[in-house]
Amino acid sequence: MTKETKDEAQTSVTLVAQRARVAARALARLPSECRTEILMAAAQTIEDAGNEILEANARDCRAAETSVAAGSMSSATFARLRVTKQGIAQMAAHVRGVAQLPDPLGKRLAATELDDGLVLYKESCPLGVIGIVFESRPDAVPQVAALALKSGNAIILKGGAEAAHTNEALVSVWRKCLSRFPSVPQDSIHLLLTRSDVKDLLEQDRFVDLIIPRGSQAFVRFVSQNSKIPVLGHGEGICHVYVDQAADIEKAIAISLDSKVQYPAACNSAETLLVHEAIASEFLPRGIATLRNAGVEVRVCARSRALLGKDGSLEATEKDWETEYSDLILSVKIVSNLEEAMAHIHRYGSGHTETIVTENAEAAKQFLDEIDAAGVFHNASTRFSDGFRYGFGSELGISTNKLHARGPMGLEGLTTYKYKLYGNGQTVAAYAKGEKKFKHRRLE
Amino acid sequence: MTKETKDEAQTSVTLVAQRARVAARALARLPSECRTEILMAAAQTIEDAGNEILEANARDCRAAETSVAAGSMSSATFARLRVTKQGIAQMAAHVRGVAQLPDPLGKRLAATELDDGLVLYKESCPLGVIGIVFESRPDAVPQVAALALKSGNAIILKGGAEAAHTNEALVSVWRKCLSRFPSVPQDSIHLLLTRSDVKDLLEQDRFVDLIIPRGSQAFVRFVSQNSKIPVLGHGEGICHVYVDQAADIEKAIAISLDSKVQYPAACNSAETLLVHEAIASEFLPRGIATLRNAGVEVRVCARSRALLGKDGSLEATEKDWETEYSDLILSVKIVSNLEEAMAHIHRYGSGHTETIVTENAEAAKQFLDEIDAAGVFHNASTRFSDGFRYGFGSELGISTNKLHARGPMGLEGLTTYKYKLYGNGQTVAAYAKGEKKFKHRRLE
Repeated sequence: MTKETKDEAQTSVTLVAQRARVAARALARLPSECRTEILMAAAQTIEDAGNEILEANARDCRAAETSVAAGSMSSATFARLRVTKQGIAQMAAHVRGVAQLPDPLGKRLAATELDDGLVLYKESCPLGVIGIVFESRPDAVPQVAALALKSGNAIILKGGAEAAHTNEALVSVWRKCLSRFPSVPQDSIHLLLTRSDVKDLLEQDRFVDLIIPRGSQAFVRFVSQNSKIPVLGHGEGICHVYVDQAADIEKAIAISLDSKVQYPAACNSAETLLVHEAIASEFLPRGIATLRNAGVEVRVCARSRALLGKDGSLEATEKDWETEYSDLILSVKIVSNLEEAMAHIHRYGSGHTETIVTENAEAAKQFLDEIDAAGVFHNASTRFSDGFRYGFGSELGISTNKLHARGPMGLEGLTTYKYKLYGNGQTVAAYAKGEKKFKHRRLE
Repeated sequence: MTKETKDEAQTSVTLVAQRARVAARALARLPSECRTEILMAAAQTIEDAGNEILEANARDCRAAETSVAAGSMSSATFARLRVTKQGIAQMAAHVRGVAQLPDPLGKRLAATELDDGLVLYKESCPLGVIGIVFESRPDAVPQVAALALKSGNAIILKGGAEAAHTNEALVSVWRKCLSRFPSVPQDSIHLLLTRSDVKDLLEQDRFVDLIIPRGSQAFVRFVSQNSKIPVLGHGEGICHVYVDQAADIEKAIAISLDSKVQYPAACNSAETLLVHEAIASEFLPRGIATLRNAGVEVRVCARSRALLGKDGSLEATEKDWETEYSDLILSVKIVSNLEEAMAHIHRYGSGHTETIVTENAEAAKQFLDEIDAAGVFHNASTRFSDGFRYGFGSELGISTNKLHARGPMGLEGLTTYKYKLYGNGQTVAAYAKGEKKFKHRRLE
């Protein structure tokens, strides 16, 4: 790209961002019922435009088939790209689901009477403009559009090139729906098309409040390192199941199995099984046999190997403890006690989700209190760490950041708050001089 | 610095950060009473070591006097550096105040029964390790140390070189106090000494969770741009007073005056006065006269100038609207209506604090709802935007970020949360297969 065309592209993304900012101010003014109504209408519009969307998707799929044949696209990526009739129905159902969630805006988070006639409220409000950069999966479009609109935010989307026609169709359907509501600017949703747009988008810190990257870890890292705007992204998921000395063996087997095999590609699936030495000889042979029967490749530490003999398990190396397999592979380590298990988790874990299997309430309490992770579980599969399962209705991703949003991120992650202060002419000078004193009475 | 010595320094800061991380895990385990008790003891230790601290400060002040004489230090900076006997008492009082604040940890933020015997809690917990980089003002040391310890966080401090002896004395007093509590690691507080340490600190994203820069805007910007760790900092403060058509003139004068002159160097003081055209001829002559009597230099827009004639006011230019004077200077602009006032604020404001003076409840509601700022006030001085005045007991700074913490940041800004899930062997497979269904019942 020449310098000149680059400047043009930059200008066009700046313009998009600027218009999204203006739209966001209008969205923030919409009453709750209106936002719900628009989402219900959008769901209907998606159903009505089903054929249009399927045709656009068919074009993307034809191009993708060539890529799969040429070996430049995996069949998994291809599967995620395809939209079916049932998929359209699911998109609409999802949007209706978000429509019916409680309003995340205007919630009173705190109220304090600072003094007579001087009352402070802390109230939730939209962030403003959200940039979302995602790979394949066109169903992300109605999903994030619904979450953003429900929370009064404008969005700028950039999807993968392989889904360009599908994404364009979905965004144009959405804008068509918005055009029927005079108080809602169509600029509330924008689709960026080229890869270079992403870099330009990450520069728009004047107009964009948050960037959410959805995709591979490498992709999330790229976005984080190149953005002037705050980024909240899916982090790494190196999750552990710790089978304590006082574990119930049946629960330990069921939870290990579910945490690993129920959906191994998910970030909340387990990568390492830690086993207390006192229960290892009882648990490990059965546990490993069950996992291996389910197709899991097991890699064990030296102590496990000594215990199990040559049972077909591979040897785990240092690298295994720090690897997110995202596959049917599990590393296994025997630890001497709870402390060693927690130290291992703090050293190698990614702060995503950690579970302890035990019948000892004290051990559970210590684990849940002391482990520094977004999710700390007792006698439950790591796979429960998910916005839908948590009851958030929908999820934008799972954050392993500690600031703003931690763990599964729903509507609340798209809001901030403001302090509203109501007075009747008060000045600070009166308090500074001691003529008046603050009361600071908490109101409910 | 040679490559080799640079590596050494880096290693030493890494070591400090690593030890702080270990200390943070121990701090997170301390019960509430224990954290309170340590702070009460620290306050006492500060009083007991008063002479030691004053002597160290005298050494810093002697060096600083030379700098002031040589013109390399402003007398304002010198004034902030000096610690008096009364200052020692204030430090101790401040630490006691923080000790007595409600515990910010272990607060139940949400509770949901996902299904029978599967209960999810969202609970507040410490962030971990906080890095604080500040300029002069040694009283920041006990202040942030108290806030960090109260919220179960370890801290790494880096103060200005001019206050090195004072800061060292304060940190050593604090560590001496901690040494009397066997369950509390002294590594909970660290002081870094050299300027190069700052850059190294900003690299420690493995061990440090948050960086708080306190100082000039240029300094905050430097830290933000050079940190791999999330930064929460004082932002710019371009605050406005909008005098609406329906304003009470007395309130408008009092609030304009207080917002500008009560402490002009503060970020929450006003820089621009916006005046509705319908009230301008009644309000402006008196308002400006009052401001000028208080020593304020007034810079007016063309419309004001036409109205006021040659009253001694200077002419405001575009640059004035975007300037944080931090001084006894105020720009004045006449606007045609509320919308124009809000558009001006959104264009030039920094999202810090904005106030409307009006007796019209509807105009106030619109202003407070629509203005996108951390603080939106009705008939109150912008100077109320402050952690102490808000009733937070203490303040780490005022954030103009929208993520994590917005506005005055107290103890809550130093916490995050985790999700604790209690089950009895549940697996996700049972829900995925439809054998079980989530209840998602909100508990209180």
